[in-house]
Amino acid sequence: MNMGKVTCDIGISVDGFVAGPNQRLEEPLGEGAERLHRWMFEQPDANAEVIEKITDAGAFIMGRNMFGPVRGGWGGSDWRGWWGEEPPYHAPVFVLTHHGREPVPMKGGTTFNFVTDGIESAMAKAREAAGDRDVAVAGGAQTVNQYLAAGLIDELRLHIAPVVLGAGERLFADVGDPGLEPVAVSHTDLVTHVTYRVGR
Amino acid sequence: MNMGKVTCDIGISVDGFVAGPNQRLEEPLGEGAERLHRWMFEQPDANAEVIEKITDAGAFIMGRNMFGPVRGGWGGSDWRGWWGEEPPYHAPVFVLTHHGREPVPMKGGTTFNFVTDGIESAMAKAREAAGDRDVAVAGGAQTVNQYLAAGLIDELRLHIAPVVLGAGERLFADVGDPGLEPVAVSHTDLVTHVTYRVGR
Repeated sequence: MNMGKVTCDIGISVDGFVAGPNQRLEEPLGEGAERLHRWMFEQPDANAEVIEKITDAGAFIMGRNMFGPVRGGWGGSDWRGWWGEEPPYHAPVFVLTHHGREPVPMKGGTTFNFVTDGIESAMAKAREAAGDRDVAVAGGAQTVNQYLAAGLIDELRLHIAPVVLGAGERLFADVGDPGLEPVAVSHTDLVTHVTYRVGR
Repeated sequence: MNMGKVTCDIGISVDGFVAGPNQRLEEPLGEGAERLHRWMFEQPDANAEVIEKITDAGAFIMGRNMFGPVRGGWGGSDWRGWWGEEPPYHAPVFVLTHHGREPVPMKGGTTFNFVTDGIESAMAKAREAAGDRDVAVAGGAQTVNQYLAAGLIDELRLHIAPVVLGAGERLFADVGDPGLEPVAVSHTDLVTHVTYRVGR
């Protein structure tokens, strides 16, 4: 069986931040960071092809902060993600966490699975679930940086918003040089899309 | 008379640095930063159009560090820039410095002029010298950031090298949000060129 690629789509400011400063429940991406994603919400047609690819994967991996704001163990929390009853993934999602929890099936084919034994284990599980389709590392910054540092991402798709955040979470922090090669670019007035092939 | 644009071409790493750490005389752009410019030296033909535009201006402005490594006053220094007897500018160059010095004429039309009364004065002088041609802010990072913060750049052309520097001088540090709009993109395997229109 052919294996799919491991992809990663991430929105980033022109000065290299993927989330603004002072992240909190009311502003989970930090101050000003909603401007990173204006192109998705204001220009869904002009960016349709790019947007479609973001969720075109057989399995997803995300960090605990991306799944939800719950600190410490899950306790009695029944948090089911930010995305309502039918999340846009339509596939298994593997959430990296230190705290185990039973899988949470959602409408439309998304199931949130909780992985407590590290990024490589999560990748193995996602690969298996995805079959010959791609695995998408969905974020946030720390999770993407961990996978980049481990050399486990094949294709990085940066969506560079023309905004300066000035502070926040930096993509590429402490990842070494992942070996990037730009293979495709496009733009609208609200975003520049750059696809990088990754590999030393 | 029509006024030209104020442009700025600058090479930048994918993580937002325009110079590496530990800049010194032997390595004026800092560690690893020569990789920012591989596209210019290894792919002059594929990037010919972009390269030609970099020096297509009627006057240039640069910071003192870009002109040379001389610290403090000029003293008896006869430093004439990094570029040999015939620099690639072929036009007046205005060097921002705290220390006045007589103009230094070079071969091929370049004259280095030394401006001690600030960035707006340098811009006025460059505008006058350029006539209806463009004025190019040639670098380095601090100079570009000062002009961005002052709202004096019309077109910012980023040449994004697919390398991670991890540390060094950051473009966009403390500039606020300059109001960027991507208007053109292209790439080779060694660089992504993004032209931004600037203006709040």
